[in-house]
Amino acid sequence: MRIGVLTSGGDCPGLNAVIRSVVHRAVVDHGDEVIGFHDGWKGLLEADYRKLDLDAVGGILARGGTILGSSRVQPAHLRDGVERARGHVADLGLDAIIPIGGEGTLKAANLLSEAGLPIVGVPKTIDNDIASTDVTFGFDTAVGVATEALDRLKTTAESHQRVLIVEVMGRHTGWIALHSGMAAGAHAIVVPERPFDIDELTELVGKRFSAGKKFAIVVVAEGAKPREGSMQFEQGVKDIYGHERFAGVATQLSGELEQRLGKEARPVILGHVQRGGTPTAYDRVLATRFGWHAVEAAHRGEFGMLTALRGTDIVMVPLAEAVETLKTVPAERYAEAECVL
Amino acid sequence: MRIGVLTSGGDCPGLNAVIRSVVHRAVVDHGDEVIGFHDGWKGLLEADYRKLDLDAVGGILARGGTILGSSRVQPAHLRDGVERARGHVADLGLDAIIPIGGEGTLKAANLLSEAGLPIVGVPKTIDNDIASTDVTFGFDTAVGVATEALDRLKTTAESHQRVLIVEVMGRHTGWIALHSGMAAGAHAIVVPERPFDIDELTELVGKRFSAGKKFAIVVVAEGAKPREGSMQFEQGVKDIYGHERFAGVATQLSGELEQRLGKEARPVILGHVQRGGTPTAYDRVLATRFGWHAVEAAHRGEFGMLTALRGTDIVMVPLAEAVETLKTVPAERYAEAECVL
Amino acid sequence: MRIGVLTSGGDCPGLNAVIRSVVHRAVVDHGDEVIGFHDGWKGLLEADYRKLDLDAVGGILARGGTILGSSRVQPAHLRDGVERARGHVADLGLDAIIPIGGEGTLKAANLLSEAGLPIVGVPKTIDNDIASTDVTFGFDTAVGVATEALDRLKTTAESHQRVLIVEVMGRHTGWIALHSGMAAGAHAIVVPERPFDIDELTELVGKRFSAGKKFAIVVVAEGAKPREGSMQFEQGVKDIYGHERFAGVATQLSGELEQRLGKEARPVILGHVQRGGTPTAYDRVLATRFGWHAVEAAHRGEFGMLTALRGTDIVMVPLAEAVETLKTVPAERYAEAECVL
Amino acid sequence: MRIGVLTSGGDCPGLNAVIRSVVHRAVVDHGDEVIGFHDGWKGLLEADYRKLDLDAVGGILARGGTILGSSRVQPAHLRDGVERARGHVADLGLDAIIPIGGEGTLKAANLLSEAGLPIVGVPKTIDNDIASTDVTFGFDTAVGVATEALDRLKTTAESHQRVLIVEVMGRHTGWIALHSGMAAGAHAIVVPERPFDIDELTELVGKRFSAGKKFAIVVVAEGAKPREGSMQFEQGVKDIYGHERFAGVATQLSGELEQRLGKEARPVILGHVQRGGTPTAYDRVLATRFGWHAVEAAHRGEFGMLTALRGTDIVMVPLAEAVETLKTVPAERYAEAECVL
Repeated sequence: MRIGVLTSGGDCPGLNAVIRSVVHRAVVDHGDEVIGFHDGWKGLLEADYRKLDLDAVGGILARGGTILGSSRVQPAHLRDGVERARGHVADLGLDAIIPIGGEGTLKAANLLSEAGLPIVGVPKTIDNDIASTDVTFGFDTAVGVATEALDRLKTTAESHQRVLIVEVMGRHTGWIALHSGMAAGAHAIVVPERPFDIDELTELVGKRFSAGKKFAIVVVAEGAKPREGSMQFEQGVKDIYGHERFAGVATQLSGELEQRLGKEARPVILGHVQRGGTPTAYDRVLATRFGWHAVEAAHRGEFGMLTALRGTDIVMVPLAEAVETLKTVPAERYAEAECVL
Repeated sequence: MRIGVLTSGGDCPGLNAVIRSVVHRAVVDHGDEVIGFHDGWKGLLEADYRKLDLDAVGGILARGGTILGSSRVQPAHLRDGVERARGHVADLGLDAIIPIGGEGTLKAANLLSEAGLPIVGVPKTIDNDIASTDVTFGFDTAVGVATEALDRLKTTAESHQRVLIVEVMGRHTGWIALHSGMAAGAHAIVVPERPFDIDELTELVGKRFSAGKKFAIVVVAEGAKPREGSMQFEQGVKDIYGHERFAGVATQLSGELEQRLGKEARPVILGHVQRGGTPTAYDRVLATRFGWHAVEAAHRGEFGMLTALRGTDIVMVPLAEAVETLKTVPAERYAEAECVL
Repeated sequence: MRIGVLTSGGDCPGLNAVIRSVVHRAVVDHGDEVIGFHDGWKGLLEADYRKLDLDAVGGILARGGTILGSSRVQPAHLRDGVERARGHVADLGLDAIIPIGGEGTLKAANLLSEAGLPIVGVPKTIDNDIASTDVTFGFDTAVGVATEALDRLKTTAESHQRVLIVEVMGRHTGWIALHSGMAAGAHAIVVPERPFDIDELTELVGKRFSAGKKFAIVVVAEGAKPREGSMQFEQGVKDIYGHERFAGVATQLSGELEQRLGKEARPVILGHVQRGGTPTAYDRVLATRFGWHAVEAAHRGEFGMLTALRGTDIVMVPLAEAVETLKTVPAERYAEAECVL
Repeated sequence: MRIGVLTSGGDCPGLNAVIRSVVHRAVVDHGDEVIGFHDGWKGLLEADYRKLDLDAVGGILARGGTILGSSRVQPAHLRDGVERARGHVADLGLDAIIPIGGEGTLKAANLLSEAGLPIVGVPKTIDNDIASTDVTFGFDTAVGVATEALDRLKTTAESHQRVLIVEVMGRHTGWIALHSGMAAGAHAIVVPERPFDIDELTELVGKRFSAGKKFAIVVVAEGAKPREGSMQFEQGVKDIYGHERFAGVATQLSGELEQRLGKEARPVILGHVQRGGTPTAYDRVLATRFGWHAVEAAHRGEFGMLTALRGTDIVMVPLAEAVETLKTVPAERYAEAECVL
């Protein structure tokens, strides 16, 4: 068999582990040939690739980033994207293509699959918001980084007697906020799924101070917003360079809470540090299993599918299903984390 | 409601997180009273306990060990163990007891439950071998510690051009060996579920050297054994103090492989470092959820049950079922990790 | 002997290690009595303190923050500050006071010392800018946290093909930027000691892209500024809550570099995470030695002095000397780190 | 200039950082050419090398091990070793050789230097026992790994109510034991420089139990021995494969202390994990500075010298001086760490 693999979209710890696993399983166990496309779909559209043998994937299991490079280019960006992809697949004699990527990538994968290309997708997002799998790799690492930061921030918040508003990743869903907040014992967790009421939040944090505590940690997902009418909230203010300069929810919440509580409050934005670097053991195992099962699916001819974790099993799920909805934090999970201040 | 909680058996990262979660959920959300028994079942048998309020569990979420102490005492060790437990439960007016422990603890819990006591168990083992739950807390931390050690050992094995035989925990099951070995890219993984053939193992490692590689890492669970007749294997040799001095499988494998391969081989025994210290974010979340749901089960009157993770849900499972069999590494999972040398 | 200890100023990993060491050395080895003042100088000015015995300092060696609390109150803030301090020292029968703090604290310590109080100072700053000691505790931890973040950010910068401008602590000196930048292999390091020329910096980063590299990491100390006239630079813009909203040098540099280079550039502000949490082994050893030697100095009657590291020795240095100048990054050290792009 | 670099002896975190720094400084700043010999002195003796340009050292700063390989071969092992080295140096047109290694390597370097070869040595040992430098790179990483292990072991010792005897590296000197023991708050530290009296040690640990504590941690350097006549002590017992099977001081101490104290005691041998893997920020900075200054010394024609840290400066020290004596733990440093039980 001849298999093409590519990584598309933002950085995510575990991408290299998937690539390595695909190569090991395919080359060693099946005697396949594997090529890696450069810079995501761009490589497929331009037939820009290299051969991947065992040496090519030596020592990459624990390394962040992706040896294949990535981009946000999608086949649908070109008028003839699907046709070009089909042409290169034919020319290169590919029996299977394994794209590793997030929501956008999987939609593109589905498009190509519907156009008849032999696709087995591997889901990737640190945000953990892909509905068809219990967990995606990268999420555990992101939560671990955020939790370690929160552990450190606690002693500083305490020493400085402050409220720290810590912004973690999650534009559409609050999974990282929920898990890191639970893991670190945050005193409030604010997620996009549940617009916050600034009065309630102020009361919640205020109760903690009334009870004699001298600091508080609030974890907020970057995509969180106030309930309509709850407080003035700016979005999208640009600086002279065209960047958003008003840093978003943590900064605004911090100003608002400081004023309402009469306590020093400061925003901390964790940022990109959550999405790079060496993956946790959990993510390496999950990524390795995804790669292994993607190759198996290809050999079984199960195309148009996605690897997914269900319980402790890796199963195959139709791509079409996988991209329908976002997996959001359900009320029951949020209830478990409702916090004691 | 009045709830008693206790921790029993060996150290396991996340015990304090469960205790804290039980107290938070019960005291704050339900207005319950919680007491903690000292040193496991011993505390229940001797009515040795203290009150646990919010202050008592402040700052313990990320701390290893257990603030309540532990022991290996079981009610069945005493002729009147069950009666004493029953008596103290009545005297103390307890509506629920939440024992947190491993296989032995859960058997004791089942015994007391069958004797009519209101028990909600929380499973605990770094070995991950309790059948009724997908994962137990402590396991992820143990795997993380072992993986980090393996990451470090790789560069040393390479610089010294050696075979390193790394012994990880797992007397009866190979979960830690499997996951840490996959996560670190070990070149062979040896588990108790599958007695090893020394000829095969020698060949496997030997192939790696034939292919020009200069080192190898073998991960072996402490309970692994050679296939009968495969090689001479000592067990239970004691030194003058009555301790096992012949360190076990890694030491013996190391000697044997060195002789057979003609390459320097060394054993590394990771030992207790895998079972202590601060839990990973994953284990803190799981432990917190177990505590929360144990309190809920008590309030619903669901006794004789155990908290368990199934996929992403926490469910309740009969204690009787949970203690029947060990969860061993199935052939499919082992196959995924069959290694490239 | 009766010794009072206090911690003053911002959070710094290692404060608890000093407190513990003072108590161990004084109580166990000398049979002294130790009291700890609450919230820095405030505790001394208000005679607010508690007794510190071995139990009081149990388990705090590795913990961030300070069990005594801290504040930014200084004796000089009160008209009768020195007199109040003198009065409480007399009333409490103190033979020595060990304040642990940064520049401001040590100036206050010097003031009280000149007023005749028996002071032995212990220097503390994550910024490493106290001139009389080779290193201060807290610095190694801060550098470690920043380096780990930079390690992670590298793979993301590479995957996203961006310039990341990473702002680390250092209002007046560039020690954290210098060491973390060297440790992580940053492609440019910008320190307050050497105002940057935006043209030079653009050229430096630009050369990297010309050479075919696809990303760059620039580390910048928060106090860094452009050379006069080099670029437009805002300071002190406040939002509606009175907070600085224009995040400072990294944000502005990022905008400017993006525009000049035509490459995506993003700021990352590491913030408070650098100053809290568990100290590194290096900082724990240094902090422990400082505490030990402070007690010895007190017993030798060497007051008006500061503990300091010189090479591998702890020596005593006059407080008056210690507070005269900041230790800035010298040209030779900066030259060592001039970077290859 | 044409410079040859090599790494010799055991693994040590920071070797790659030195290699990278030599290449960066020499190639970029001086326009030199750099070659790297493979497998230590072996590469020089056999003219086995490769060119090192910027790409060759890309991404290695944080990686453990050495990209050049290492061995324990010394020029003095061959009758014509010095002559062969001289011949290859002439043939290759080398103006300087930078060997990076420990005591043995530096002795060989001195031998070649005295034979007229242009040598600039860089000291390397995780043991920190080279007398002419305040610190060697690798030591901080080893202490960090040992301290993290001790932090974890503490909670387990406490939960299991045991004495844990933790053996760390240090055949001849106790630096790792001293620093990790101080950093982790060990209850006794045993170093080779001071043979222990088993009665005293038993009393020390026993006092802790008498005072109501339920566990103890003893850190012992692998080279520690009992005072003569203090207790029976075996060395060098081999198993059937010729390996030392009686694991050494921790195992024997554990047996002895268990018997004398009547408390469970267990040995933990940290082993190779201390000498591999990614270096700490401290070690990366020190290694980078050593490489930089080695190139500078070569350009100044300062041969027969060694880079050394003195305070915060890198200085050059005669090789002949450097190899005369081991740097042992002095009584004053040991006194600082005398422990409270």
